[in-house]
Amino acid sequence: MRLATLRNGTPDGALAIVSSDGRRYVFATAIAPTLQAALDNWKRVEGELRRRAVEVESGDGVPLDDRALAAPLPRAWQWLDGSAFDAHGRLMTRLFGLQAKQSDRPLMYQGLSHQFLGPYDDVPLPSETDEIDFEGEFGVVTDAVPMGVSVSQAAAHIALVVIVNDWSLRAIAREEMRTGFGWVQAKPACSLGPYAITPDALGANWDCHRAQLRLRVEVNGKLFGEPHGGEMSVGFDELVAHAAATRTLCAGTIVGSGTVSNDDYLTSGSSCIAERRAIEMLDNGAATTPYLRFGARVRISAIDRAGQSPFGAIDQRIVTSRPGGVGAADGTV
Amino acid sequence: MRLATLRNGTPDGALAIVSSDGRRYVFATAIAPTLQAALDNWKRVEGELRRRAVEVESGDGVPLDDRALAAPLPRAWQWLDGSAFDAHGRLMTRLFGLQAKQSDRPLMYQGLSHQFLGPYDDVPLPSETDEIDFEGEFGVVTDAVPMGVSVSQAAAHIALVVIVNDWSLRAIAREEMRTGFGWVQAKPACSLGPYAITPDALGANWDCHRAQLRLRVEVNGKLFGEPHGGEMSVGFDELVAHAAATRTLCAGTIVGSGTVSNDDYLTSGSSCIAERRAIEMLDNGAATTPYLRFGARVRISAIDRAGQSPFGAIDQRIVTSRPGGVGAADGTV
Repeated sequence: MRLATLRNGTPDGALAIVSSDGRRYVFATAIAPTLQAALDNWKRVEGELRRRAVEVESGDGVPLDDRALAAPLPRAWQWLDGSAFDAHGRLMTRLFGLQAKQSDRPLMYQGLSHQFLGPYDDVPLPSETDEIDFEGEFGVVTDAVPMGVSVSQAAAHIALVVIVNDWSLRAIAREEMRTGFGWVQAKPACSLGPYAITPDALGANWDCHRAQLRLRVEVNGKLFGEPHGGEMSVGFDELVAHAAATRTLCAGTIVGSGTVSNDDYLTSGSSCIAERRAIEMLDNGAATTPYLRFGARVRISAIDRAGQSPFGAIDQRIVTSRPGGVGAADGTV
Repeated sequence: MRLATLRNGTPDGALAIVSSDGRRYVFATAIAPTLQAALDNWKRVEGELRRRAVEVESGDGVPLDDRALAAPLPRAWQWLDGSAFDAHGRLMTRLFGLQAKQSDRPLMYQGLSHQFLGPYDDVPLPSETDEIDFEGEFGVVTDAVPMGVSVSQAAAHIALVVIVNDWSLRAIAREEMRTGFGWVQAKPACSLGPYAITPDALGANWDCHRAQLRLRVEVNGKLFGEPHGGEMSVGFDELVAHAAATRTLCAGTIVGSGTVSNDDYLTSGSSCIAERRAIEMLDNGAATTPYLRFGARVRISAIDRAGQSPFGAIDQRIVTSRPGGVGAADGTV
C-alpha cells in the first residue's frame, strides 16, 4: 500500500491512496482525514486503507500529478535521524577529524520536524556560504511505540517507508558538532519523497529491516551517486528500539537511516557532497566538488532490482530565503 | 496574563485563563480551544484573551486545582534548549572534560517535544543506573517566527514565559555528547510548570529578555538550590534569533534557557545534581550527592522579589517505567 498527502490548504493536507504504478489516486479521507490521523489509529484503520488500496489497484481512482503532493507527513511530532551507514561515518570522520561513533550504540540526533518540504517544493536557505549539501536517506514512519520496546517488538511498529533529503549546512555543522549538542542551524527542514509505502509492498526490496534499493542522487541532471540501502550496520528495527529506550515514540515518528553510503564508494558514488569531498581529499589531497549554489537542483529516487522507482522522486531547487536576495533561477550550479 | 491547560481527554487539553493569584480560572475555549490554537493565531486572539483575563482579575471564574492541569503545551512541534548560563557550562566542562562552548555562538540542542509532562505528573523512567537528574530552567514560547529574524525582531515573537524541568540521564548524556550528535536517550520528556505567563505580567521580573527571578529547586522536601535567572549570557531574544537563523519557528516553539546557574554557586546552589557533583569534585575531590532514585520528588518554582511564586510549581515523583518493576512509592530517596 502506497499513501500520499494532497495539499488542501490545511497544515496536514488530505490523505490519499496511490496505485502501485503511481498513476492514480483516491482520497482516503473518509477513512482518516490525514496520514497523522491514520497513524494515530493505525491498528484500527490499516485494514480499511488496504481494502481501499485493492480497489485502486483494480483501476479505481483519478490521475495523479506528483507535483500536487505535499510531503506524506507535512509536519511530524518527531524526527530522529540515525547514522547507520558506517562507510559514511568513516569518511566523515576523516574529513572532520571528529570520531562520532564511540561504541556499538547507534548514532542518532533529533532534528526539525515541524515542517517537511514536499517533493517538488523549492528549498529556501539563507546563504551559499553555509556550504549547502544534501543527504539522501531512507526512513521509516512508526505508529505509537511504548518506552523500552525490544528490537523484535520495534519491528512491528514500522508502518511505512519513505525517502528523505536531509538538507545540511556543512560550514555550521562542523562547529555545532564540536559542541556535543548536535545540530540546530546546520539542519534546516528536510524533504520527503511523494509516497509512504508499507514494507510488504516493497516485496524483496524490504529485507532484514532495511530498504534493499539503490538510492539514486542526481545533481543538476547528472548522476551523483547510487549507493545501496542494504549496507546499514543496524536495521530500522534496532534504530526504532534505540530511539524508544527512554521515551515513548508518538505515532508519526520518522526515523532516518542517515546518509546512504557503501564500502565500494568508488563504484556506488555518494549521496552527499561532503562524503565525496572527503574521498577527493583522501585520493587527491584536495576536495574539488563544490557545495551547492542557489538555483541548483537535487533529485533523489530509489531504484529497485526491476529498475522501478517505487518511492517516486524528490526533485527540488535551492532558492534564497532572503527577500530580494540573489538567487540564480537558471538551474545551473 | 496567565494561561493554563486543563485536561479534557484530548491530546492538547482545553485552554484556560488563570487569575494572577492562581486561585481561579475560566475556560478560554470560546476564544481558542487550545494553547496551540491560540499561538497559531496569536496576533489575532491575544487581545481577546487579555480582555477576558481582565474579567478574571475582577473576580470571574471558578476555583483552580493545579493538580488538574496538564502542561500548558502538553505537546509542541519544537523544543530547542539553550545553555545560556555560562557558570553551568564551565562547571560541566570540568566534570565531563568536554568543552561545549567553542565561541560566542549560543549553545542549543533540539529535544523531545511530542510530550511535556504536567506539573504533578509522575515521571516514568527505565533505570536508576542511568543517573537520573533534573535541570531547572526558564523557557519562552513563541508565535510563528520567520527564518532569519534579527535579535530585536525575535523579541517581539516571545509570547509566553514558562518554567521547565529538563529531565536528564547523565550516564547516557556523557556518551551521547561525545558523538557530537547531541542527546536522544539522555533527554526523556521534559515537564512544564502549570502557568504560561505573558512577559508584561511579570513586571520588573522580566527585564533584558531574561526572567529575573530565583529558580527554587527542592529535592525530597529540602532546598537544593535557588539560582537567579538574570545571569544568562544571552537573552531569550538572542536564543530565538539563533534558533531561527536557518529555519522558520512554528507557533508554539519552546526555547529553553538551559540549567539556571550562577557564578556565586556556593551561595545560590545549583538547579541540577550534576553541577553540584562537579562542585563537590572541585572542592573535595569526590562527588557525594547521589543521583535520584525511584520515588524521589523534585519541586521547582520561581520566586520573585516580592517572595511570590508566579509560575506555580512543578512537583513530581520519579517512578519506574517497567511494568512490575521496582519503584519505591514512599517518597523517600
